[in-house]
Amino acid sequence: MHIVYKSEPERGLLWQAWLAQHAPDIQLHLWPDIGEADQVEILVAWQPPANILATFPNLKVLFSVGAGADQFDLSALPPDLPVVRMIEPGLTQGMVEYIAFSVIGLHRDMPRYFQQQRNQQWRAHNAIPASQRRVGIMGLGELGQAALKQLVSMGFDCAGWSRTAREIEGVRCWHGDDQLADFLAHSDILVCLLPLTSTTRGLLNAELFRQLPYGAGLVQAGRGPQLNENDLLAALASGQLRAAVIDVTDPEPLPTEHPFWSHPAIWLTPHIASQTQTDSAIAALLQNLRRYQRGEPMIGLIDRSRGY
Amino acid sequence: MHIVYKSEPERGLLWQAWLAQHAPDIQLHLWPDIGEADQVEILVAWQPPANILATFPNLKVLFSVGAGADQFDLSALPPDLPVVRMIEPGLTQGMVEYIAFSVIGLHRDMPRYFQQQRNQQWRAHNAIPASQRRVGIMGLGELGQAALKQLVSMGFDCAGWSRTAREIEGVRCWHGDDQLADFLAHSDILVCLLPLTSTTRGLLNAELFRQLPYGAGLVQAGRGPQLNENDLLAALASGQLRAAVIDVTDPEPLPTEHPFWSHPAIWLTPHIASQTQTDSAIAALLQNLRRYQRGEPMIGLIDRSRGY
Repeated sequence: MHIVYKSEPERGLLWQAWLAQHAPDIQLHLWPDIGEADQVEILVAWQPPANILATFPNLKVLFSVGAGADQFDLSALPPDLPVVRMIEPGLTQGMVEYIAFSVIGLHRDMPRYFQQQRNQQWRAHNAIPASQRRVGIMGLGELGQAALKQLVSMGFDCAGWSRTAREIEGVRCWHGDDQLADFLAHSDILVCLLPLTSTTRGLLNAELFRQLPYGAGLVQAGRGPQLNENDLLAALASGQLRAAVIDVTDPEPLPTEHPFWSHPAIWLTPHIASQTQTDSAIAALLQNLRRYQRGEPMIGLIDRSRGY
Repeated sequence: MHIVYKSEPERGLLWQAWLAQHAPDIQLHLWPDIGEADQVEILVAWQPPANILATFPNLKVLFSVGAGADQFDLSALPPDLPVVRMIEPGLTQGMVEYIAFSVIGLHRDMPRYFQQQRNQQWRAHNAIPASQRRVGIMGLGELGQAALKQLVSMGFDCAGWSRTAREIEGVRCWHGDDQLADFLAHSDILVCLLPLTSTTRGLLNAELFRQLPYGAGLVQAGRGPQLNENDLLAALASGQLRAAVIDVTDPEPLPTEHPFWSHPAIWLTPHIASQTQTDSAIAALLQNLRRYQRGEPMIGLIDRSRGY
């Protein structure tokens, strides 16, 4: 089977060597080398070439190297081409770490302490137990469920919200537009892990922030265009939000002189919450390739009607 | 039974009200009110008065309101007076949160990302899985064991070191001076939770830092006098240490203009890793008072020969 890989070259070389050892029947070409174009069944990419079927006339599946596929312009892709996103333990573990770090940091008022450090101020503030801190995660897929499991083990009072109903042990689950207000009213710390869709674009705005408890914290590890940046700045200025941890922006990189860079109540990281791990990702990819070869459903197949 | 409480007045009032409801046979006096001095059996304090037996001629037990008793000058106390430190779930939970936050932060290179934020630099760096990150905790008492349990659940490669041999599930345990070098060589992130004794004073020095892997991280949540501050600054300057999270200093508060305040690779917090929680601490104290009344061994009794 012939595959073309079109993303970071360094990782491509490692994947090529790994496949040569573990799956010698699979031939991985590193873009711009595509081998015999009409033999290529699979493209693994962050961004496909503009005319995907002109380049690969017999393409059967497009794999994203990332946890999402929203970097693809789905409308520009052949409508019946299966699109599969990356689900692998390294991505999930990375996100769980990032969420745990951010939630504990907000829970324990760390942005305030770091600000005090800059001001040479030694002053302790009361802490409340994790059991009295209500953490709400929006988006209850693979990543959201894994993060909730970790937070529950740390004793936080956890809730979740998703488009359709879910059940997660130890977590109060809400769903749909009707229950969003109740979920928000119970989230002292709100974590966004939603995929980017037409309904989540701009969702993190003043109207949503107003429904959170006064002084809430925000962790934005979804996608940049979901956040109304001016509304966030206003909510921080009014005290409605106390602090925010932001891993994704629109655009990325964030332009210099943007107010997020120097805001004392914002922790900004460069889209590193969850990074595809070379080792575990190629093992997950191979597993999916074998499923494809056997005609089984692939893990992470995008529902083109939902966009995720 | 008559008890005198000598510490933060606000907490004292809450404890007095709580005991009146849950243990009306116990009379809690709030310093400087001591009631009938010769009836006082128990002193609960952060610092006892200078002439403790002159003030309380019939004192039977001294309780510390903190997790340690090293703020007491043990040599100035009557040699046969039992001294008991605070062991309560709120203190433990707070420390577990602080350690998890600090270890994930160092594991994920967060001090570097926060520095990049100040420099308006958007740049991702490779992350390694938690399973490849070796975390070593010095001090395997109540707090160390609880922190290790949490870190093991997050997938870190965990080790522990203590004065005497211990066994902890999922953790490689070392002990004694002979095994210290091996333990240090395996600690990419070193966490100090040791009590302050004559042997741990100044222990975190250049000689110890040299035995860590190059670029290691440090979390100091023990006691201030254990750390040689100049040696830490030198180790950060040479790259031997990559970053440090410091919750305790000597003296506290840290003097203004101290280099820790503005060091880009140091996160400094004002001794807040573990704070006695009003609710859970009074419940733990009452449990210990009942043990005392029944003649049972008290939890947290200090071994005066070891000093902890």
